[in-house]
Amino acid sequence: MHIGLVGLGKMGNNMRARLREHDIEVTGYDNNPAVSDVASLKDLAAALPAPRIVWVMVPSGPITAGVVKELSEALDEGDMIIDGGNSKFTSDFDNEKLLEPKGIKYVDAGVSGGVWGLQNGYGLMVGGSDEDIEYAMPIFDALRPEGPREEGFVHVGPTGAGHYAKMVHNGIEYAIMQAYGEGFELLETKKDLIKDVTGTFKAWQRGTVVRSWLLELLVLGLEQDPSFEEISGYVEDSGEGRWTLEEAIDNAVPMPAISASIFARFVSRQGDGSPTMKAVAALRNQFGGHAVKKAD
Amino acid sequence: MHIGLVGLGKMGNNMRARLREHDIEVTGYDNNPAVSDVASLKDLAAALPAPRIVWVMVPSGPITAGVVKELSEALDEGDMIIDGGNSKFTSDFDNEKLLEPKGIKYVDAGVSGGVWGLQNGYGLMVGGSDEDIEYAMPIFDALRPEGPREEGFVHVGPTGAGHYAKMVHNGIEYAIMQAYGEGFELLETKKDLIKDVTGTFKAWQRGTVVRSWLLELLVLGLEQDPSFEEISGYVEDSGEGRWTLEEAIDNAVPMPAISASIFARFVSRQGDGSPTMKAVAALRNQFGGHAVKKAD
Amino acid sequence: MHIGLVGLGKMGNNMRARLREHDIEVTGYDNNPAVSDVASLKDLAAALPAPRIVWVMVPSGPITAGVVKELSEALDEGDMIIDGGNSKFTSDFDNEKLLEPKGIKYVDAGVSGGVWGLQNGYGLMVGGSDEDIEYAMPIFDALRPEGPREEGFVHVGPTGAGHYAKMVHNGIEYAIMQAYGEGFELLETKKDLIKDVTGTFKAWQRGTVVRSWLLELLVLGLEQDPSFEEISGYVEDSGEGRWTLEEAIDNAVPMPAISASIFARFVSRQGDGSPTMKAVAALRNQFGGHAVKKAD
Amino acid sequence: MHIGLVGLGKMGNNMRARLREHDIEVTGYDNNPAVSDVASLKDLAAALPAPRIVWVMVPSGPITAGVVKELSEALDEGDMIIDGGNSKFTSDFDNEKLLEPKGIKYVDAGVSGGVWGLQNGYGLMVGGSDEDIEYAMPIFDALRPEGPREEGFVHVGPTGAGHYAKMVHNGIEYAIMQAYGEGFELLETKKDLIKDVTGTFKAWQRGTVVRSWLLELLVLGLEQDPSFEEISGYVEDSGEGRWTLEEAIDNAVPMPAISASIFARFVSRQGDGSPTMKAVAALRNQFGGHAVKKAD
Repeated sequence: MHIGLVGLGKMGNNMRARLREHDIEVTGYDNNPAVSDVASLKDLAAALPAPRIVWVMVPSGPITAGVVKELSEALDEGDMIIDGGNSKFTSDFDNEKLLEPKGIKYVDAGVSGGVWGLQNGYGLMVGGSDEDIEYAMPIFDALRPEGPREEGFVHVGPTGAGHYAKMVHNGIEYAIMQAYGEGFELLETKKDLIKDVTGTFKAWQRGTVVRSWLLELLVLGLEQDPSFEEISGYVEDSGEGRWTLEEAIDNAVPMPAISASIFARFVSRQGDGSPTMKAVAALRNQFGGHAVKKAD
Repeated sequence: MHIGLVGLGKMGNNMRARLREHDIEVTGYDNNPAVSDVASLKDLAAALPAPRIVWVMVPSGPITAGVVKELSEALDEGDMIIDGGNSKFTSDFDNEKLLEPKGIKYVDAGVSGGVWGLQNGYGLMVGGSDEDIEYAMPIFDALRPEGPREEGFVHVGPTGAGHYAKMVHNGIEYAIMQAYGEGFELLETKKDLIKDVTGTFKAWQRGTVVRSWLLELLVLGLEQDPSFEEISGYVEDSGEGRWTLEEAIDNAVPMPAISASIFARFVSRQGDGSPTMKAVAALRNQFGGHAVKKAD
Repeated sequence: MHIGLVGLGKMGNNMRARLREHDIEVTGYDNNPAVSDVASLKDLAAALPAPRIVWVMVPSGPITAGVVKELSEALDEGDMIIDGGNSKFTSDFDNEKLLEPKGIKYVDAGVSGGVWGLQNGYGLMVGGSDEDIEYAMPIFDALRPEGPREEGFVHVGPTGAGHYAKMVHNGIEYAIMQAYGEGFELLETKKDLIKDVTGTFKAWQRGTVVRSWLLELLVLGLEQDPSFEEISGYVEDSGEGRWTLEEAIDNAVPMPAISASIFARFVSRQGDGSPTMKAVAALRNQFGGHAVKKAD
Repeated sequence: MHIGLVGLGKMGNNMRARLREHDIEVTGYDNNPAVSDVASLKDLAAALPAPRIVWVMVPSGPITAGVVKELSEALDEGDMIIDGGNSKFTSDFDNEKLLEPKGIKYVDAGVSGGVWGLQNGYGLMVGGSDEDIEYAMPIFDALRPEGPREEGFVHVGPTGAGHYAKMVHNGIEYAIMQAYGEGFELLETKKDLIKDVTGTFKAWQRGTVVRSWLLELLVLGLEQDPSFEEISGYVEDSGEGRWTLEEAIDNAVPMPAISASIFARFVSRQGDGSPTMKAVAALRNQFGGHAVKKAD
């Protein structure tokens, strides 16, 4: 299989590498010529065998919309676009509306795994028709982790369902990070009794109820900087947390813990001294390679 | 090594089995004669070689206090008591005050792992003196999971520190369970788009940021009852969540997510129809063998 | 002054009465002929002197939009529409876009006061141009409470600002009701010590920091049913609480207390036994004449 | 009637003035000789007619406990101590245990009203026996606001009930302040639409559902400093908010809004830039004369 990949940033670049390792031929395009395989989206279309598949991996919102628009003109009937970015699920409805009349197929793919995905594989949640997803399956199989397909890949539902599931995934992620952060702050505060905070988190990695991949990343972070002195407690929020909360409101679903973790990020804009949020910032840094603001 | 173990309920019985598998001789006592190895705590003391070690694994609060009191009379100078129950860390200060004048050593041990501990090993967080903990290390090594000691065992600090760390562990656990529960409720509510809720959680097990042991248990629960129709949303709270919150208050540590998860349990007493809390109840059932109230 | 009033429900009917008491001539229209002064919106337009003012007081959303649409056809250049309903501020932008090309003026008015407004006057928050609001001032002066104008009326900003302020007002209202509700539940639960819950709330009416109009209403409710035994704890939420939360998210404003009160209402759909929410339901009943679901 | 009053700080001094205005003779003691009427508690006892009544109005905790202890030695059987401070209700049980064997009567009085109490009267919540409270009624009638007694005074229950009700009062107060604060922050943030934030709060004073005394104080604060630029967002918390939350935990009462307001204060220690918390700080300043930390 030979596909196109638009967007060769931190995520896209790693995904290209993983796809190639799994014998998918990839022609990549990025508006940075230094990393791009071709000079334009038109050239990309020309380089691919029909029916073409183009995976879009650029910042969500207007940039993704612009790429999809441009591709809708460069591609032909029977081709397929997969949006793997962190797009809002409603944008998938827009994309479908644009592409369907032209006979261009569309699949939305929520992708989790951050900078570790190259090595571990990416968790994939996809939305679209059975037929289209079946057709793109070799790509999903290359990107997803080793092991049973259903443990790293799911066809969630029709168009939009993949990004919806990814959105909820990120809402959950926020609250789990907040949970560890709050626990860290209490342990860190209780200095007269707790003599080994890092060791405590480290010891939770096996056997305990709270063991998780995020816990392992927190341990990595603590081993580098045990009191997170170098890290600012300012934590940005991506769109997905907000959208999860919006959906909770629209569907009358109570979300006290997830909302608490989003509001804690909002508050961190007003003062970056919170140990909880330093732990959250350290976690984001570990899994996403998100830039961490250094404490002053 | 030959030790005594008081309390042969769900946890104690499994721990006796695991200790014996790891070549620790165990004489167990329970007030249920059907499962007890000896007839009384006195007989237990008589059966053990000096200096004796007795691990206490009974319900926290007055029952643990009663057992420690009785043991303080049955044991001799140089013996050791380890409280492995879900005790409040302040009870450790009381125990130490009682035992120190008699020359009886005391170690507190927070134990995580639930019914899966027999198979996987137990995560251990202990408090006490270096010397006492070194002395009891063969027991800890038998109980903790395979792998590097520091990934399943930690000496957190002086007396009380072990139970304190376990308390915080459980506070975090509450919030993580709540996080998955809230995500479940949103996915379950969005039925027009989300066609495979169980499959979505299942697919998060590899590669994603939210993968964890609790997630795996949630998948087990969903596979048995995909909409948790058989499960009441009433979720009891153990003492540890409440104590975590009390400590947060005493130490001026903000805990919006952990408090949200505790309050959600309080609310579940007043109406048990919440999908979030059904997921939480299912999780507790999976890891702890906690009885689940059946939905009417 | 002689104006038109569309919508003669609980609110509209009271407002017509208050306007007439303050010497504003009112021709009312309702699709219920039993209460309507004229047979159609066309007849309403015909009955009013030019330039006409029509106050719309119908359910927000599509019904208000439909009335504004119909009025846009029945009215002439230089006439004015005032939407006094609980509309979302974004609908004001739509109305303005519809009406501006026709030269029909538009003012949005947030109205607070519930069923007590007839007697006490209505708190008014309006959005629009200085000129338009100046022109409609006799109406606002008739509706607002006695006393200094600025204590019951405000020109908040351009179109939409009135409904925006009303939206935030309602968000605050939710959290205040929740605050009293939570206090009620704790007092009610602590029966061994607290012998006079109603008397306690009653005594807070003068001198204390928490005295308020909502407190007075809560006392009225408690005097009718001291433990709210007759009242279900199910509390509906109007759009305004949700919109407030959506705006908080969009503007990165942390809203832990207001969101908590909205989520508490969501939870009350899943079980209606909460004493907190019974108090909230009783409050809504007192100020809004909102139907209260009887406890089974 | 002639009573003793211990503690002539901001509150005690005002209360002495109000009592005297209402024809209660007051001998005041303070450890600051500049404001004290007598040189010692012994002198105070000597100056009062038997049976004596001494009102204690000093900082809660060890200082109040010390004064009650000393008074228990200076007073005689049949005398009465009233603790009007912001004491924890559990301290009332201690006081009763100390005083009962000596035949000294004890009443606990929760007092609300802050610096405005001198002018408006104080809201009073008292605990103790019917007989003792009847005996002290002239004092309560002098301190409470004009109007019906039951609107500014309540006998809540036995010893401790007065301080318990005051504690809950303050918990509610925290959440109401937080509610206004959150609304303020959203309005303040939405600058493109909301042109008159102060005017909006001002207009809520009559007719609206959210009108309250705290709202009036907020308007006073906004008129002095419309964006709270001079005020730090750091807000201390008194014991009563924390105790309310502890009692919620002990009694399994969900308190999401009140806990949110307490946690917001904790967070404000870590960064003082929150507009919400600036509004809360301004409110505290208005009603309590609490020192406000100036923004840097």
